[in-house]
Amino acid sequence: MDTYCLSGGLVLTPELDVISANVVVDRDSGTIESISPDASAPEMIDISGCLVTPGLVNGHCHGAMTLLRGYADDKPLDAWLREDIWPVEAELTPEDIRVGTELAAVEMIRSGVTAFADMYFAVDEVASVVDTAGLRARLGHGVVTVAKNEADAWDDLEESFDVAASLSGRADGRIQTAVMPHSLTTVGEAYLQAVADWLSEADAEIGLHLHANETTDEVAPIVTERNMRPIEYASELGLLGENTFLAHGVHLDATEIELLAETDTRVVHCPASNMKLASGIAPIQELIDAGITVGLGTDGAASNNDLDVFDEMRDAAMIGKLATGNAEAVAAASAVQMATSWGAEAIGLPGGQLREGGVADLAVIDFDAPHLTPAHDYVSHLAYAARGSDVRHTICDGQFLMQDGALQTLAEASILDEAADAAVSLVDRATN
Amino acid sequence: MDTYCLSGGLVLTPELDVISANVVVDRDSGTIESISPDASAPEMIDISGCLVTPGLVNGHCHGAMTLLRGYADDKPLDAWLREDIWPVEAELTPEDIRVGTELAAVEMIRSGVTAFADMYFAVDEVASVVDTAGLRARLGHGVVTVAKNEADAWDDLEESFDVAASLSGRADGRIQTAVMPHSLTTVGEAYLQAVADWLSEADAEIGLHLHANETTDEVAPIVTERNMRPIEYASELGLLGENTFLAHGVHLDATEIELLAETDTRVVHCPASNMKLASGIAPIQELIDAGITVGLGTDGAASNNDLDVFDEMRDAAMIGKLATGNAEAVAAASAVQMATSWGAEAIGLPGGQLREGGVADLAVIDFDAPHLTPAHDYVSHLAYAARGSDVRHTICDGQFLMQDGALQTLAEASILDEAADAAVSLVDRATN
Repeated sequence: MDTYCLSGGLVLTPELDVISANVVVDRDSGTIESISPDASAPEMIDISGCLVTPGLVNGHCHGAMTLLRGYADDKPLDAWLREDIWPVEAELTPEDIRVGTELAAVEMIRSGVTAFADMYFAVDEVASVVDTAGLRARLGHGVVTVAKNEADAWDDLEESFDVAASLSGRADGRIQTAVMPHSLTTVGEAYLQAVADWLSEADAEIGLHLHANETTDEVAPIVTERNMRPIEYASELGLLGENTFLAHGVHLDATEIELLAETDTRVVHCPASNMKLASGIAPIQELIDAGITVGLGTDGAASNNDLDVFDEMRDAAMIGKLATGNAEAVAAASAVQMATSWGAEAIGLPGGQLREGGVADLAVIDFDAPHLTPAHDYVSHLAYAARGSDVRHTICDGQFLMQDGALQTLAEASILDEAADAAVSLVDRATN
Repeated sequence: MDTYCLSGGLVLTPELDVISANVVVDRDSGTIESISPDASAPEMIDISGCLVTPGLVNGHCHGAMTLLRGYADDKPLDAWLREDIWPVEAELTPEDIRVGTELAAVEMIRSGVTAFADMYFAVDEVASVVDTAGLRARLGHGVVTVAKNEADAWDDLEESFDVAASLSGRADGRIQTAVMPHSLTTVGEAYLQAVADWLSEADAEIGLHLHANETTDEVAPIVTERNMRPIEYASELGLLGENTFLAHGVHLDATEIELLAETDTRVVHCPASNMKLASGIAPIQELIDAGITVGLGTDGAASNNDLDVFDEMRDAAMIGKLATGNAEAVAAASAVQMATSWGAEAIGLPGGQLREGGVADLAVIDFDAPHLTPAHDYVSHLAYAARGSDVRHTICDGQFLMQDGALQTLAEASILDEAADAAVSLVDRATN
């Protein structure tokens, strides 16, 4: 057994208590062997002044959109997509998607993320980056059928099926997959029905991920055309269930919340994106109260503009209070759970909790910093004051992805250079 | 002349253009001697990959409340104050205020702040810290007269006058002052009238700073008792004008906005605090449209929970969109202006702009980071993606307060230790 011990620090328990304990990790199995004050291993790694937390979970992302970070801001969703984002995305090559995803991986590892869900294109490239980076992920090909001819639309859907089937279990099981129809309005009914049919025959490991109820513009057509709410429509199509996670869920009514709860469908809250695009505030406290498993997502970097899940924790807690006018809503503990155990559960990946025998996906956060002093309450600090740059080590499946601030699996400097060049070239192609 | 040159980087101009230029600073006068591609000095400091911005301005703060960071969260304002904050504040010693303010200074310097406005007690201690730290500040003693007998109330007000008069111009002019009645509801009418009278005779350098229209609970009593809005009441008392800056301004109606604009009264927006205490969203785009000078403030660390003005920029831009349902509202450029030139103007201190002959208050921000790659738009990155930890150098009045991430004027490690101990002791005294 090849073990190491994180020693002299504090540990965040699944109940969000903070205890003094050492953590022994087995590199071979990628699991936590023990958590106790006396635990030790041949290799002792001093983490005095640090808190070990579960690796953070970014439940909704379009990784390669890092290439568009800051490219177009402060515009309404529709104009932003049509005038800026889609014309550039049309020019993306698989090589762009590779380097954009590498940049996303570097950024996420730097800020303590060990697992994420990604909806994009050229998913083979994405999977290869995840494998190399050592991250855990649920990946899928985003399908849009509107404005496509029927043959192209079915081809697009087939690609999503193929990706989901072929990549499932890759990277020693760290990669799981989902079918990812973009949303209930950008994918036609026949295709959505085909998704439900395909999934009913598919491996139970394969999930379903889509955007839902993000804006009022996305809700209104379904209500008008079908005389039902979007989540009722999804339910009729057989798309809900514990393997389904919906991104956003900003505009949900009481009936829809009940449907989500009954079917154990999961929601990934993307507070920064919802603010930046003026989409609104998701009723997160109500979802939590209804027993729905809620995770957190950064969405793509173009609408955030970073992939720092600490920001999402803070945003979720902050706007949860705005939404309700109640300072008790979406408390710090809920924000931390959304970023860890609830998030892992939402996207159906292991991790999110530190326990003996569980996967060794964790972040070591340095609390010896002015903005984290004094330490009356570590959970409060995680939600309200810590930031990605406080992460000292990031460990996934027992392997160091970042150690003492240095990336271990990816060549950070060259990725930054390559991504900067690719972004310039991409925008040149799109605008000339 | 003792000059140095920040060379090889980019510079943010007052118009928010980003240019390639060197910046020569004269240590003796504390001013910027030149900004040009060819500028040089005997001491060349390489800042390749960095952007020079004006030092950030934290327009509303209670610095020493860092000792209460994370002490009580997720509670409504009234209960939070009565059950948690006030009982602890009652135990604060001048020594606590010194170390709490030192901690605040360390945190602000680390995140590129060079000027701040602070309302608290034991202001001699605060001023001494500002002097040592090398920061610029507008300081004042916070007055509360409700629930005090008349003699104590007048004494409290006198202290605010004494502080304002005696500390004005300290620290080689880096310290300015203001009379700081806490708010229009916590200070009685006779005392507010006395403030207006005193200021009419005082040095024009002395300002007026108070909380206003933070919560609906603060607005309602004035409307009920006086049949006028709070800002009308302030106007009748003669409290408005270009030397007055109001913190919060969450609940302002059209008449009040017009009054603020007419009198050139300034507003300091505190988005994080307003979210965390569920106070609401200030109508910032409307204030900007009305021509009102708006700055940004962190408020105290207990309701934020950090003093990172990058967070406030992001929050201001984000919730400006939520408040209006318009993604164009409070654009990145407005957020950056609020944190720099508008902020400096709001609290009446020099700085906030980089120009030859102006004060050398600046931050050097390292853009060689994954979350700031690619660099399509530096202003967007300042508002949406950068964070305090990206600041490499902080310079105020021409002096390095932080160089290459190392504090130059304050003993960071011992301040962190002292503050941690003081916070534990403080809470012990308050709860036992």
